[in-house]
Amino acid sequence: MWDEALKLAGQDPDYHRKDLEEAITNGAYPKWKFGIQTIAEADLDKFEFDPLDATKLWPEEDFPVRYIGTMELNRVVDEYFPQTEQVAFCTSHVVPGIGFSDDPLLQGRNFSYFDTQLSRLGINWQELPINRPVCPFMNNNRDGQGRHTITKGTVNYWPNRFEATKPATVAEGAYYDYPMKVEGMKQRLLSKKFSEHFNQAQLFYNSLSDHEKWHTVKALAFELDHCDDEVVYNRMCERLADIDLELAQKVAELVGAPIPQKAGRPNHGKKAKNLSQMDFLPETPTIATRRVAIIIADGFDATAYYGVKAALAAAGALPFTIAPKRSPIKSSEGKEVKPDHNLEGQRSTMFDSIFVPGGAQSVETLRKNGRALHWVREAFGHLKAIGATGEAVSFIKDACALPAMTFSESGDVVESYGVVTASQTTPQSFKEKISMAADAKDFVDAYTFQISQHKNWKREMDGKFPDFTR
Amino acid sequence: MWDEALKLAGQDPDYHRKDLEEAITNGAYPKWKFGIQTIAEADLDKFEFDPLDATKLWPEEDFPVRYIGTMELNRVVDEYFPQTEQVAFCTSHVVPGIGFSDDPLLQGRNFSYFDTQLSRLGINWQELPINRPVCPFMNNNRDGQGRHTITKGTVNYWPNRFEATKPATVAEGAYYDYPMKVEGMKQRLLSKKFSEHFNQAQLFYNSLSDHEKWHTVKALAFELDHCDDEVVYNRMCERLADIDLELAQKVAELVGAPIPQKAGRPNHGKKAKNLSQMDFLPETPTIATRRVAIIIADGFDATAYYGVKAALAAAGALPFTIAPKRSPIKSSEGKEVKPDHNLEGQRSTMFDSIFVPGGAQSVETLRKNGRALHWVREAFGHLKAIGATGEAVSFIKDACALPAMTFSESGDVVESYGVVTASQTTPQSFKEKISMAADAKDFVDAYTFQISQHKNWKREMDGKFPDFTR
Amino acid sequence: MWDEALKLAGQDPDYHRKDLEEAITNGAYPKWKFGIQTIAEADLDKFEFDPLDATKLWPEEDFPVRYIGTMELNRVVDEYFPQTEQVAFCTSHVVPGIGFSDDPLLQGRNFSYFDTQLSRLGINWQELPINRPVCPFMNNNRDGQGRHTITKGTVNYWPNRFEATKPATVAEGAYYDYPMKVEGMKQRLLSKKFSEHFNQAQLFYNSLSDHEKWHTVKALAFELDHCDDEVVYNRMCERLADIDLELAQKVAELVGAPIPQKAGRPNHGKKAKNLSQMDFLPETPTIATRRVAIIIADGFDATAYYGVKAALAAAGALPFTIAPKRSPIKSSEGKEVKPDHNLEGQRSTMFDSIFVPGGAQSVETLRKNGRALHWVREAFGHLKAIGATGEAVSFIKDACALPAMTFSESGDVVESYGVVTASQTTPQSFKEKISMAADAKDFVDAYTFQISQHKNWKREMDGKFPDFTR
Amino acid sequence: MWDEALKLAGQDPDYHRKDLEEAITNGAYPKWKFGIQTIAEADLDKFEFDPLDATKLWPEEDFPVRYIGTMELNRVVDEYFPQTEQVAFCTSHVVPGIGFSDDPLLQGRNFSYFDTQLSRLGINWQELPINRPVCPFMNNNRDGQGRHTITKGTVNYWPNRFEATKPATVAEGAYYDYPMKVEGMKQRLLSKKFSEHFNQAQLFYNSLSDHEKWHTVKALAFELDHCDDEVVYNRMCERLADIDLELAQKVAELVGAPIPQKAGRPNHGKKAKNLSQMDFLPETPTIATRRVAIIIADGFDATAYYGVKAALAAAGALPFTIAPKRSPIKSSEGKEVKPDHNLEGQRSTMFDSIFVPGGAQSVETLRKNGRALHWVREAFGHLKAIGATGEAVSFIKDACALPAMTFSESGDVVESYGVVTASQTTPQSFKEKISMAADAKDFVDAYTFQISQHKNWKREMDGKFPDFTR
Repeated sequence: MWDEALKLAGQDPDYHRKDLEEAITNGAYPKWKFGIQTIAEADLDKFEFDPLDATKLWPEEDFPVRYIGTMELNRVVDEYFPQTEQVAFCTSHVVPGIGFSDDPLLQGRNFSYFDTQLSRLGINWQELPINRPVCPFMNNNRDGQGRHTITKGTVNYWPNRFEATKPATVAEGAYYDYPMKVEGMKQRLLSKKFSEHFNQAQLFYNSLSDHEKWHTVKALAFELDHCDDEVVYNRMCERLADIDLELAQKVAELVGAPIPQKAGRPNHGKKAKNLSQMDFLPETPTIATRRVAIIIADGFDATAYYGVKAALAAAGALPFTIAPKRSPIKSSEGKEVKPDHNLEGQRSTMFDSIFVPGGAQSVETLRKNGRALHWVREAFGHLKAIGATGEAVSFIKDACALPAMTFSESGDVVESYGVVTASQTTPQSFKEKISMAADAKDFVDAYTFQISQHKNWKREMDGKFPDFTR
Repeated sequence: MWDEALKLAGQDPDYHRKDLEEAITNGAYPKWKFGIQTIAEADLDKFEFDPLDATKLWPEEDFPVRYIGTMELNRVVDEYFPQTEQVAFCTSHVVPGIGFSDDPLLQGRNFSYFDTQLSRLGINWQELPINRPVCPFMNNNRDGQGRHTITKGTVNYWPNRFEATKPATVAEGAYYDYPMKVEGMKQRLLSKKFSEHFNQAQLFYNSLSDHEKWHTVKALAFELDHCDDEVVYNRMCERLADIDLELAQKVAELVGAPIPQKAGRPNHGKKAKNLSQMDFLPETPTIATRRVAIIIADGFDATAYYGVKAALAAAGALPFTIAPKRSPIKSSEGKEVKPDHNLEGQRSTMFDSIFVPGGAQSVETLRKNGRALHWVREAFGHLKAIGATGEAVSFIKDACALPAMTFSESGDVVESYGVVTASQTTPQSFKEKISMAADAKDFVDAYTFQISQHKNWKREMDGKFPDFTR
Repeated sequence: MWDEALKLAGQDPDYHRKDLEEAITNGAYPKWKFGIQTIAEADLDKFEFDPLDATKLWPEEDFPVRYIGTMELNRVVDEYFPQTEQVAFCTSHVVPGIGFSDDPLLQGRNFSYFDTQLSRLGINWQELPINRPVCPFMNNNRDGQGRHTITKGTVNYWPNRFEATKPATVAEGAYYDYPMKVEGMKQRLLSKKFSEHFNQAQLFYNSLSDHEKWHTVKALAFELDHCDDEVVYNRMCERLADIDLELAQKVAELVGAPIPQKAGRPNHGKKAKNLSQMDFLPETPTIATRRVAIIIADGFDATAYYGVKAALAAAGALPFTIAPKRSPIKSSEGKEVKPDHNLEGQRSTMFDSIFVPGGAQSVETLRKNGRALHWVREAFGHLKAIGATGEAVSFIKDACALPAMTFSESGDVVESYGVVTASQTTPQSFKEKISMAADAKDFVDAYTFQISQHKNWKREMDGKFPDFTR
Repeated sequence: MWDEALKLAGQDPDYHRKDLEEAITNGAYPKWKFGIQTIAEADLDKFEFDPLDATKLWPEEDFPVRYIGTMELNRVVDEYFPQTEQVAFCTSHVVPGIGFSDDPLLQGRNFSYFDTQLSRLGINWQELPINRPVCPFMNNNRDGQGRHTITKGTVNYWPNRFEATKPATVAEGAYYDYPMKVEGMKQRLLSKKFSEHFNQAQLFYNSLSDHEKWHTVKALAFELDHCDDEVVYNRMCERLADIDLELAQKVAELVGAPIPQKAGRPNHGKKAKNLSQMDFLPETPTIATRRVAIIIADGFDATAYYGVKAALAAAGALPFTIAPKRSPIKSSEGKEVKPDHNLEGQRSTMFDSIFVPGGAQSVETLRKNGRALHWVREAFGHLKAIGATGEAVSFIKDACALPAMTFSESGDVVESYGVVTASQTTPQSFKEKISMAADAKDFVDAYTFQISQHKNWKREMDGKFPDFTR
């Protein structure tokens, strides 16, 4: 959510870094499927866009992704500077079998990446442990500032009569350049297809889910709201009308530009897959690595607290206990818990969900705590799953104060726009073995399912809530 | 406010820069009194602290500030890079009459600043227009990377038989080093007084206002809350007990350290002036350069809107109109206003105060707008002045929902914790000539006085509000 | 001469620089004809060599030089560092009408020259006075270390709606790239013609004069004499046999390689003009800027001294008086001359010719001075013109001690291998108005003609002298 | 010799480097006695000069050298760049027990050497193999461009609660600064004794041997001869008269300045030992590592050639065979020798001595070779030992052509000014076991003794030869 991002950038600018580190040290290694898209040289001119235009995407319908591996981050660095700050990527360093297309962006990068590494790290950047080739003998460089390697021997050239430093042949696996065919006039021009700017913009916009389209409207409106020059935002809205009329109209209204009355060009209506984040939901619901804040105060319901905490942990989520202070908090039965943080030390933005257990005294304390109230309202506004049991149900109800929502009033578990409540619970309500489902009868099953959905987009999109959530 | 800073750092990292630029381009030039503190060489050892310890302050009671000028920023740069990015400060460059004390931090800086300019800007950094001496003949350097000046002549040394390039004598105003007396053993040591770490910490803490002390507690608690190693926060709280027991106890409770039971050393109870920001309030109230958000929707009360806006502008404040959209908004009388921003494009953090005029339709729209509600609540939480008239009074009342507060219910102007309301207004209620006062009967007078107070610390400190504000 | 170069490199490493500076400050501005060779794109493949091979020359017979101007050096710099050390040449900076061929050396230089200037002088090297374009508005760069220019205005991009910073069109004279036709396979290869290494080597060797061929032999023999690895010098001599058998045989004998018995390939016998320095002799003899050492001691013949000195100066040569000491030297008539240098302070290598006037006492002194003897012998060995009159004739004769030479024994002027002598002279023998000629009867005419010939190659080549001169 | 240096600088600028490398690879490791001079702090002001003035020497009479070791060069580098080019000396890096005096030159160097290494090699120059401390754990640096070391662990500061990275104490051998006593006014001044410029100049000049004094005259005259501004050389000669009147007079005459008639100040007449190179002659004569050129042509006397060559090699000298060509040379008995170099490929400057064996045909060939003649004359002029046997004696005699010398005319071995000749030799004349002596009867003994004397200073100094040698 944009509002979440705006705040988090100030509240914890390292949030994403910490997220990675937390996942890796907890053994939940981040993984990505590694796929490539290829095109036969002969087909290069067959498309309505130029495949060498780096601003264009290759629709997966026409260019299926071929998955060739998995990328997994499973170790953190020993020391930040030499192993992270000094990492040097270089597009011009490739292995045999990979060549360079005529993509002008790639060609430019082949020079600029190398130059960058030189000015960042010096001429011997390839000697640094983190950048060194796995095979230490592959680097024929000599000399230059900061040179560590001492190369014995009298020749560093080829051919030489000692047959020393003989380079590998192509037959032995050496790199060779692909002999591409070229024909035409050498001029400083771009392919004409580079000038077709709207087809793919339409394709992209059409392929988004409803809330992604809405986020696109809001993002454009946010940035253009900061522009004081009406020529700029008026023209921008005219250009948006070349993509999609509705998009342009919504943005224009928010930013104060004349509302376009007709599309600059018809929307071709085509979509492509895997352009919406919605195309990437996990096949079975999971809450692994989700950070859940459990908010308590003295007198909290220990049964609900321990029950939900254990269930979350068993499913791979990371429960954190948050209270008005980090000094020990007593449960209704007198048992003490030391919170992980106090309410002021963190913000709801840093968590994927919040759970508030019952306990009359605890809930009463939180109800009077402006910051606790804000945690609930902010998490609700950011479309996060919220869970509450016992006395906490009415706290959530009052905090949200939205007539469209329903809450549990008895032993039933009620799910309403991602908020899962159970007014009455027994120790049996909490179990470690969970079975997430949208319509689960069990509190833990229902609540964790909502967490697994990441965001409750309905809350934002079905029009029943104030504009806060819009 | 800490929460404000946390958010603003993400919402607009350039906020302070823009603030300066806005003030300068509006002619409200930022100014500072420029004063110095001096000490006779003979008195150097007479104080319980070492005046050469850069971590110590020189209490104004003992070392009165002598004001020697005013610094005023009255122009913005023509181009950012050559005039701002390349500015080079250098502690070792001084004019005749200024010398260097034995302050170890200064001595270190005399080397590091020069080295820094060399590596940032090159050896000829003093030739750059922004760094050039006013007198172009004062620089005897020659050669070096990027040299622009071409110096004719055959000698660049002195003495020479042509009597060329003769340096100024001390009698002519040349720089000379102050002949300081030294006596003792040359060793790599710091003065023993450098090791006295607590007297001035107590002095500083004692000199703070109540809310500054509370902010100190909260700032310490915020940071220590992020520390997972109990050795660290326990020890830190022990050290705080060396400064002030109450401070240590409050922090310890919030961060979960053992609550210290006695002070590590007695607080000497001394204070010094001008250490609290409260010592620097302007003598007569002013709202010049304060940014005020006027929040409206279709159907707003034009009389109140224009009246308050004119009054603010007349007093040098900067009113901004904010609405659900930036497209034109109609007043109750049908006149259109084009807002400066939409509600999503800005946040309350970017303004010093908010004002909501009445108008039944407008207030009804805002009441249903979650973001509008949040503007009011957040501004209230950040202790800002809030003003409302007509139907907007009840909106503010409902948004804050705090029983301790009172609101205008008739024609009376009511001020309660910095929130100024007037349920019924007439065109006469709004006037351009204002007379700010705490107990003013007039809405504009009362409201602008509250703006002039910057923050309503009572709201935070008197204990009548939920912990949100604490 | 190689021996001259070997010595001069140690005796005065700045000799050539001083030579330029001496010529410029004396108003004898060095000039070069500025010519270009061009080739029609269509003819690129018509030659047996590849015109894009930077190691090949374009024979003037096939590619006539078109002279388009004169380059003249007529000013010395005001300050060395900013105006000489910081000069930046850049092959990639060209004016409209000039484009880049596919010469691989040029293409490489287009990158490396620019990179070099960046690392030598910084990113703003084009701002330096010596490198600045004549038109100060031609540089659209902004920012970067050491930026001096402050550019006002809000846009630095094109297109923009203010129509500011509009670039020139091709019609207005803007640069555009020549649309060269390309067709083929893009591969990392050189043209096959690049591998033909011997045709032009033969052409070059054939085009040399006899003494240039002999110098080529000696230069090769000198360098290979320093190589202790027989594989290297043996193979080198085999390669030379691919160029010219006689060349290879002479070198092989001197360096101890097996003497090649047959040519590796037949010498095609072709020559090209303007490859020998002999093709560039001035059309009419001149001695302008030639440095002539006049060696004297107490008792020198003032008539000859002043006569020759005046004649040399009148013809634009630079006479220098050299004596055993720089203290005043008395002529036979008692008049004093202050020498420019003593004999030890200079060497014959630094002069183009030496002249020794008579005077019994002076010549007797020089005859006993080992250094004076060495000046004569070394100048003779380096093939320079030598002049002597009166008693000095026998001194030169004894110093050279070579039976093949003839010397003046009476009033006749005798020229023998560049040594011009006149045993008996009268004041009429010396005149300012000279008429240089090989067979002149007049001493000054004959001597200055020999100076104008630069070197007496016959001395080296006709076999009548010991191997010293060979 | 100055003339030798002038030529060698051009003929082989790497001569000294090769000399070191030749000695090391031949096992004749260069060695130096390593001594220090110290002074008690209390004595610092007791001398007429300031011991902290880096332009003054500490006379060994007053400050005896204490020899604490030997420096030996016994290995050449594996690769030049990383092991030689990157070597970084740093005066500020010292071991415990060494401190810094107030020598202003040293204090300046402590900054500039460190800065130099930073700009040459980058901030991590101490990580480079050649600069790395023997103990790899002694460097607490972290980060910075080109960092190779990866330091694990969580703390890099001290004190810390893990007791990690604890620095050594002084008791354990850590470095500590000497607590020097200071007292006075801190001003930018030099000690007044720094202004006494002549006492030590006199001491130095007085301590030289005769030929060193003469070389001083010639060196000054050579440089001042190049100065065209009489103010400069006149003043310089006046200053020389402040040192020694005779010195000043000799220089003034050669450079054309007024001859000083009285000393600027009296010469105190004092001398100090070990200021003349003559104080450092080896105790027993040696020719180890001396380079001897044996010059031959076809028909050379094989007995003399092999005999002398074997004797030289046995004594550790390095004999090189030089001939008109490097192709095989036949001895009078028909045996072939392959020369190391031809006569043009080297110069006499590169050798310590020359030997010419007899053989009628060989000597006749050399006699007609101008370059061979020059080898003899130049070696004679540079005061080197020369040896000749058989027919070669007359060749040397004719080449030198100096009446003051005597040569062997029969079987006697004659030594005259370092030239050793034996007209008639038998195989018994040459032996491997030599016994060098000034008055040896045996050719090899006499000749090698002359080589061991390095230079024959008498040849330069006794006035019997032409000024060449002066």
